[in-house]
Amino acid sequence: QPKFEKLFDRIDALKPAFIERLGQAVEIPAVSGDETLRPQVVKKAHFLVDQLSKLGFTDIQLKHLGKQPPPTSIPDLQLPPVVLSRFGNDPSKKTVLVYGHYDVQPASLEDGWDTEPFKMYVDEKLQLMRGRGTTDDTGPLTGWLNVVQAHKEAGVELPVNLVTCFEGMEESGSLGLDDLIAREAQGYFKGVDAVCISDNYWLGTKKPVLTYGLRGVNYYQTTVEGPAADLHSGIFGGVVAEPLVDLTQVLSSLVDSKGKILIDGIDEMVAPLTEKEKKLYENIDFSLDDLNAATGSQTALYNKKEDILMHRWRYPSLSLHGVEGAFSSAGAKTVIPAKVHGKFSIRTVPDIDSDKLTKLVQDHCNKVFAKLGSPNKCSTELVHDGNYWVSDPHNASFTAAAKATKDVYGVEPDLTREGGSIPITLTFQDQLKCNVLLLPMGRGDDGAHSINEKLDISNFVGGMKMMGAYLHYYAESKEN
Amino acid sequence: QPKFEKLFDRIDALKPAFIERLGQAVEIPAVSGDETLRPQVVKKAHFLVDQLSKLGFTDIQLKHLGKQPPPTSIPDLQLPPVVLSRFGNDPSKKTVLVYGHYDVQPASLEDGWDTEPFKMYVDEKLQLMRGRGTTDDTGPLTGWLNVVQAHKEAGVELPVNLVTCFEGMEESGSLGLDDLIAREAQGYFKGVDAVCISDNYWLGTKKPVLTYGLRGVNYYQTTVEGPAADLHSGIFGGVVAEPLVDLTQVLSSLVDSKGKILIDGIDEMVAPLTEKEKKLYENIDFSLDDLNAATGSQTALYNKKEDILMHRWRYPSLSLHGVEGAFSSAGAKTVIPAKVHGKFSIRTVPDIDSDKLTKLVQDHCNKVFAKLGSPNKCSTELVHDGNYWVSDPHNASFTAAAKATKDVYGVEPDLTREGGSIPITLTFQDQLKCNVLLLPMGRGDDGAHSINEKLDISNFVGGMKMMGAYLHYYAESKEN
Ligand SMILES: [Zn+2]
Ligand SMILES: [Zn+2]
Ligand SMILES: [Zn+2]
Ligand SMILES: [Zn+2]
Repeated sequence: QPKFEKLFDRIDALKPAFIERLGQAVEIPAVSGDETLRPQVVKKAHFLVDQLSKLGFTDIQLKHLGKQPPPTSIPDLQLPPVVLSRFGNDPSKKTVLVYGHYDVQPASLEDGWDTEPFKMYVDEKLQLMRGRGTTDDTGPLTGWLNVVQAHKEAGVELPVNLVTCFEGMEESGSLGLDDLIAREAQGYFKGVDAVCISDNYWLGTKKPVLTYGLRGVNYYQTTVEGPAADLHSGIFGGVVAEPLVDLTQVLSSLVDSKGKILIDGIDEMVAPLTEKEKKLYENIDFSLDDLNAATGSQTALYNKKEDILMHRWRYPSLSLHGVEGAFSSAGAKTVIPAKVHGKFSIRTVPDIDSDKLTKLVQDHCNKVFAKLGSPNKCSTELVHDGNYWVSDPHNASFTAAAKATKDVYGVEPDLTREGGSIPITLTFQDQLKCNVLLLPMGRGDDGAHSINEKLDISNFVGGMKMMGAYLHYYAESKEN
Repeated sequence: QPKFEKLFDRIDALKPAFIERLGQAVEIPAVSGDETLRPQVVKKAHFLVDQLSKLGFTDIQLKHLGKQPPPTSIPDLQLPPVVLSRFGNDPSKKTVLVYGHYDVQPASLEDGWDTEPFKMYVDEKLQLMRGRGTTDDTGPLTGWLNVVQAHKEAGVELPVNLVTCFEGMEESGSLGLDDLIAREAQGYFKGVDAVCISDNYWLGTKKPVLTYGLRGVNYYQTTVEGPAADLHSGIFGGVVAEPLVDLTQVLSSLVDSKGKILIDGIDEMVAPLTEKEKKLYENIDFSLDDLNAATGSQTALYNKKEDILMHRWRYPSLSLHGVEGAFSSAGAKTVIPAKVHGKFSIRTVPDIDSDKLTKLVQDHCNKVFAKLGSPNKCSTELVHDGNYWVSDPHNASFTAAAKATKDVYGVEPDLTREGGSIPITLTFQDQLKCNVLLLPMGRGDDGAHSINEKLDISNFVGGMKMMGAYLHYYAESKEN
């Protein structure tokens, strides 16, 4: 690809420096979900400020988001800052906002890691980097810094103005970020033409993808309460109505073992499958074996690739997560729990309306509970919701990214959706009124939230080349 | 009651000393379920040895039971010792073994106690003693020591030989005690004519009871496993068979919200209700209001006193306790748990056979699971079982205890059974081949395993008088 020869050569040459930078970042245990580690999250923000500053980014700002809303264990706990910065401010160029998060999931050696999770291990034989955050999302985030460095050192002008938005609370619900984006839409983010998020993964391990859709999620909690306090089953077993028995009846009515949601009215809200859409799934590089490899089991509900993909991407699903308030440890406690909360969530897709869904869920649970004739009380509440997102996979951003992918990997990327949600995608789209592109760097087996999280060096390097090329193709595009 | 005037007067006079002794014992946080507090459990054993020694008990032995079986957090954790001792060894007298446990349930101020649980608080207005162990079982246990002291100081000869068996592991399954009783049946316990256990409670708060029956308990665990590790419901929801969905279906098939067990074949094993037995329940001092007061709610499954008592005492019940391996905290985690254990237990009554019951339970769970057509694996195991116990409530021991109760409280005691199990009852009966009497000291609202555990001073004093009088009446009895 002579078009990007200088840039790509420089990225290859800088590989050791880029691995070194990622290693430094991984060493900071920026676990947003562990309040006691909050100073480390802040430290990582300052590390990024330092790096951005050295690379010549300007207008670097640490945006403070105030106190973390209750419940917190540490009083007056401050949210980690959002790191904003720019590279270039040329009105004749398009402006691309790149989002990433510098916080990470919890990790400790005792969980079963082969090496210290916060000491990046470079496996020379497998050509991968192992450590918490390598793929989610410190690797891709530092990738943007590296792309700028490579342009500078290669003497290639950056074809767009770059704006960074790096948050430190993504793994804990992106608290405060929605408000910041709304506030800065006409402020720091004014003039942004496109948003690029690199915080998801290839579907499998071999073929690059671009992601144009995400399911939403509505999380529910059904509470059944009866006795004033937990009771001993010897004394009260058989004479009181047990909340957990009632809850189990309600939970068992939500979904069957084949994955079919048993709540009336949901299927009717799902956008019908067209013949055109159906064809899309046939070409995706995926198989039952990939699913089984990912689950480490033979527990798939479908055998056909198309069915699996459609049920992951374009159909709703209902999962039971657990019960709060009941006995949950090892051993044999003979308690009758007095108040139990059943947790479940529904993954949403076009055209499910969140409010209407909640009404259907509540009506269903109330109806099932009423039939039990129990003296206990039952209520179902929406804990949180985040809408689904679907983009046009042939807009200027996606077209530029597809060209970039072809240049780097030699193949057209698969156009995929994802089963999970990245709620901030929708916020950027709605608040900045522009297209959002999901441009994944890592592979489907990177283990983002698991032990031994890794990023293949080829994906790191390939990803940065793709990011760089994308900026050029997007800059050249006619549309916005 | 001129018969026991000297003894009862002395008990009244010694009340302050007895409260003082109980206060000292309560101050030692002998929580057997907290491994880190094991030294405190041992300390309390030594406290008892010291007290027994001062009172003139002989042949005092700390019986060591060896290491606590796995799983333990502390390696090589020793079980607390059993405290054996005698008072009197006259071959012309009957010998009564009194059992008690000096360990207690966990407790901490943060649970909601009004005062420090391990600092006994004497409420002069309500005339009660509040603290962990006051009623379960340190109060009744020290009661036996006090009875001996009162005899000595009143100059009344103890009418029987007394043998004490005080254990420190009752709240944690009485580990090691069965073996000890079997070993000492022809050793330390040789010649024991009757066993008296004061470790349960009046049915209500006003009328004394003697207890002649206990339900047994079979504790089960149904495990469903599928994926190799927990999965993210965004990525895998809708495409894998969720173990918790399958488990919920199985658990929902066990019992309905009216308390009816849905497993075939169990009802047929229950001894039929005779007209004579039916009449017994009519005279018991108990009401729906008592049940509602105990549960702090209106969650009773039956309105009639007789139905409540029968379902507590003479019918089996099935309780769901919880799920291990699923999400169980506050908040909203979107996990698909890979391996979940549903915990439930069945309270057993005459003539349910434990092995046959286990077979019925396993067959039922396997059948329900098979119908689901799930690719996951399901198995159900018996975690532990303890048989039911029913005694003749008109044997020498019960007759003596009834007379003692009448002398102290002025009423015939209600003859009750209990819904819970005290497995050691059956062990004593079977190993020592003698009758066991359950002679409760405290009231039904003492809160044995709850916050603000208390013992009314009138029950403490009345209980000791009853214990003392019982020994005399039993000594005079013709049987045995
Ligand atoms: Zn991420
Ligand atoms: Zn993540
Ligand atoms: Zn007890
Ligand atoms: Zn107890």
